[in-house]
Amino acid sequence: METSKLKQELVKLLGKDKVLTEDLDLMYYSYDSSFLTKLEPSQPNAVVFPKSTEDVQKVVEFAYANQINIVPRGAGTGETGGCIAVQGGIVLDLSTWNEIIEIDVKNMQVIVSPGVIHAELNNELAKHNLFFPPDPGSSMMCTVGGMVANNASGLRAVKYWATEPYILGLEVVMPNGDVIITGGMKARCIKNVSGINLTKLMVGSEGILGVVTRIRLRCFPKPKARGIAMAVFDNLDDAPEAVMDVYQAGILPSGIEILDSSAIKAVNDFKPEIKLPDAEAILLFEVDGNPPSVEYEGQVIREVTGQRARSVEWATEPKRMAELWEGRSVTAAASARVRPDGSRIFAGEDISVPISRVADTLRALRDLADQHGIQIVNYGHIGDGNVHTAPVINPEIPEEVEKVIKFVDEVHLLAIEMNGSTTGEHGVGAVRRPYAELEHGKAVEYMRKIKAAFDPAGIMNPGKVF
Amino acid sequence: METSKLKQELVKLLGKDKVLTEDLDLMYYSYDSSFLTKLEPSQPNAVVFPKSTEDVQKVVEFAYANQINIVPRGAGTGETGGCIAVQGGIVLDLSTWNEIIEIDVKNMQVIVSPGVIHAELNNELAKHNLFFPPDPGSSMMCTVGGMVANNASGLRAVKYWATEPYILGLEVVMPNGDVIITGGMKARCIKNVSGINLTKLMVGSEGILGVVTRIRLRCFPKPKARGIAMAVFDNLDDAPEAVMDVYQAGILPSGIEILDSSAIKAVNDFKPEIKLPDAEAILLFEVDGNPPSVEYEGQVIREVTGQRARSVEWATEPKRMAELWEGRSVTAAASARVRPDGSRIFAGEDISVPISRVADTLRALRDLADQHGIQIVNYGHIGDGNVHTAPVINPEIPEEVEKVIKFVDEVHLLAIEMNGSTTGEHGVGAVRRPYAELEHGKAVEYMRKIKAAFDPAGIMNPGKVF
Repeated sequence: METSKLKQELVKLLGKDKVLTEDLDLMYYSYDSSFLTKLEPSQPNAVVFPKSTEDVQKVVEFAYANQINIVPRGAGTGETGGCIAVQGGIVLDLSTWNEIIEIDVKNMQVIVSPGVIHAELNNELAKHNLFFPPDPGSSMMCTVGGMVANNASGLRAVKYWATEPYILGLEVVMPNGDVIITGGMKARCIKNVSGINLTKLMVGSEGILGVVTRIRLRCFPKPKARGIAMAVFDNLDDAPEAVMDVYQAGILPSGIEILDSSAIKAVNDFKPEIKLPDAEAILLFEVDGNPPSVEYEGQVIREVTGQRARSVEWATEPKRMAELWEGRSVTAAASARVRPDGSRIFAGEDISVPISRVADTLRALRDLADQHGIQIVNYGHIGDGNVHTAPVINPEIPEEVEKVIKFVDEVHLLAIEMNGSTTGEHGVGAVRRPYAELEHGKAVEYMRKIKAAFDPAGIMNPGKVF
Repeated sequence: METSKLKQELVKLLGKDKVLTEDLDLMYYSYDSSFLTKLEPSQPNAVVFPKSTEDVQKVVEFAYANQINIVPRGAGTGETGGCIAVQGGIVLDLSTWNEIIEIDVKNMQVIVSPGVIHAELNNELAKHNLFFPPDPGSSMMCTVGGMVANNASGLRAVKYWATEPYILGLEVVMPNGDVIITGGMKARCIKNVSGINLTKLMVGSEGILGVVTRIRLRCFPKPKARGIAMAVFDNLDDAPEAVMDVYQAGILPSGIEILDSSAIKAVNDFKPEIKLPDAEAILLFEVDGNPPSVEYEGQVIREVTGQRARSVEWATEPKRMAELWEGRSVTAAASARVRPDGSRIFAGEDISVPISRVADTLRALRDLADQHGIQIVNYGHIGDGNVHTAPVINPEIPEEVEKVIKFVDEVHLLAIEMNGSTTGEHGVGAVRRPYAELEHGKAVEYMRKIKAAFDPAGIMNPGKVF
């Protein structure tokens, strides 16, 4: 459909304030945080800003009737091109539809529209002594709808899992405009095993099966206390061993993060005043719960990790906790500065491996980087084996781009070889599609069957996942 | 296919020790624990005992080629007819295939075949300081495969969720004999968001999409301490309020159980030495974690519930904990004895409602029971709103059967009316099919699309779920 006609039709459906079709506006929607979209931006034909289920339904029905692609988008913080119209079409920018519809304190549930920002939701919940535990790094920006699409997690998945268990029900506009409610049409209960679990099917399906327009999620009582331990290791292999020792001691921390020597150096170069000790690895444990529990678990972590670590420090005062955590908080920013002429790119940044293979994986990553002449910084959620690798290149130099593409391919293959996954929390999007068969074999056929059954016209976020 | 021919073919595939076709043997497989199968037992045409993926695959391929139904079965402890060949066919009895294939202590995962008993798995895991938290009432009998099929939960879902989050990967024989591995073919990682989440789709799908032949599940560090609080209420409405107060105080107990006045009476009649206090409701809180945490949470629960309860007792010594818990443990047995000429039947036994509506639901259940002249006992997992109702009738008297069928229908409708579900943990099976559209509306169409895409021949456990 011609742009002018498309604009006319969409304005008829939604009004002119909710439709963009000017090139300059659309360009912004050619990118997310992925390196892929920096290399190959894809401009949509139009962007719309739905503010209700009816808005979404109207656009999807129109797109279905005219065989136009639909691409749902949250805040665009994704790192895989998941929200990019790689085959053209209409982007549904859901980020401005940000309504906390109801906080049902008694039943510890909250109903939100897809554009609500994660941190804002938790700020509101905190007023009622509740919280939504998953804690993505992009908490201040990312939307709950995007978290559902990607089954996001982040720092606290060790103890609190990813987004998925918390999602009790969804309203979804299906690719033909049908509106369904998963988890029970009128349900406000926590447990429900009636029917095939469409809720969990939708979570993490990256917008290829439908557009999520309403989310019912479970909250937990907000823990009263928190503590941080920092353990410093001269030997990389001791770090994952210490993690497993802590689990064996009966402790499930809310988060366990690692900085390897590359990340330690990057942080110290970036902000020398942080003064991270020079070491092969630093582990940060976060423990939460009630005050005596936190004290006890801090004591155990100190004892247990002390058997392998050069030093362990434990803190529960907010100021000291923030200082200990600062190295981790600035790692992403620090990675971007390890080369004066370089940029950190988001590619191969999110592999997941068994905890027992984290040390081998970190070594193999460094070997691969050396082999390809790429500079990298490694950190991540070691508590669940989710490793973040930050390649730093000068993207203006074609040879470096070529090298990093090869490197990233080998990172993904390494993850599978290590009995892991190409993506622990960021999703497949457009960038990890080539690995679907290698990771899942014949199971991909069954993913395709679901896609074909729900979206026979193939208009929902095409070119993603597999 | 004639029985003699069917037997011949199955024996050719599996050997004669793994095939039953004699009437007397098949009769046993006409029942599970549901009332429905007592009323209308359905005998399969054959029962087989697969002991490998290849065994399952051979039988499914044969069934697929000959359009014969396949019905997977674990220990038969289900209460919905889920494992019954209601339209005939071959029952796959997976209960004798009970192998703990690997306990991967370092990565806190275990790989099992479907027939492993829940309690036995936890006994083995305890040797490594690990546990698989979901805790169904039938723990001593039920299989892990059955738990996956039903997304089972039980006492500890308040803090630890149901079976589903723990399931990281499955091997499944699909209805045409394809073998797929979900969660990554070679994966041993915890986090994986690659692809449509077929693992979570299979969990709770009650054997209508395929036969689960191998299960990879996550374990947690086993908590070191436990405590029990018993709170006694003169006013039913105070019980759910006290539960919500505890959550508001920042405590997430591992379990919260309720006995209403009907259950208290049943227990005291059954075992007078237990001496449960005469009251409108008794709550039992179970708290677990590290020792100081358990002490602290016990103290908070005492204070908080003490504001509404007539009395609260807190215990951490194993003997006293067992005594406090005994009322709850014998409730099921006690229910069966409230009438000398009666039996407890399993029907309408598993509704789930919002916690805020538990008191109204319990009252409405009693009103319905009175209206229909049925005796009932109510108890359940109030912490997550999962109410167990035990109707007691004399099943030899047709009028009582007729009355209870009407009563149970109204119980299911009540659950939906209360913004709940007809089933919190036991599943739909054959008995709750009639409520699928009422609960899920148009979403059922999409469940059917998945079923049709995976099982176009309709041979996998037909007559279940919707």
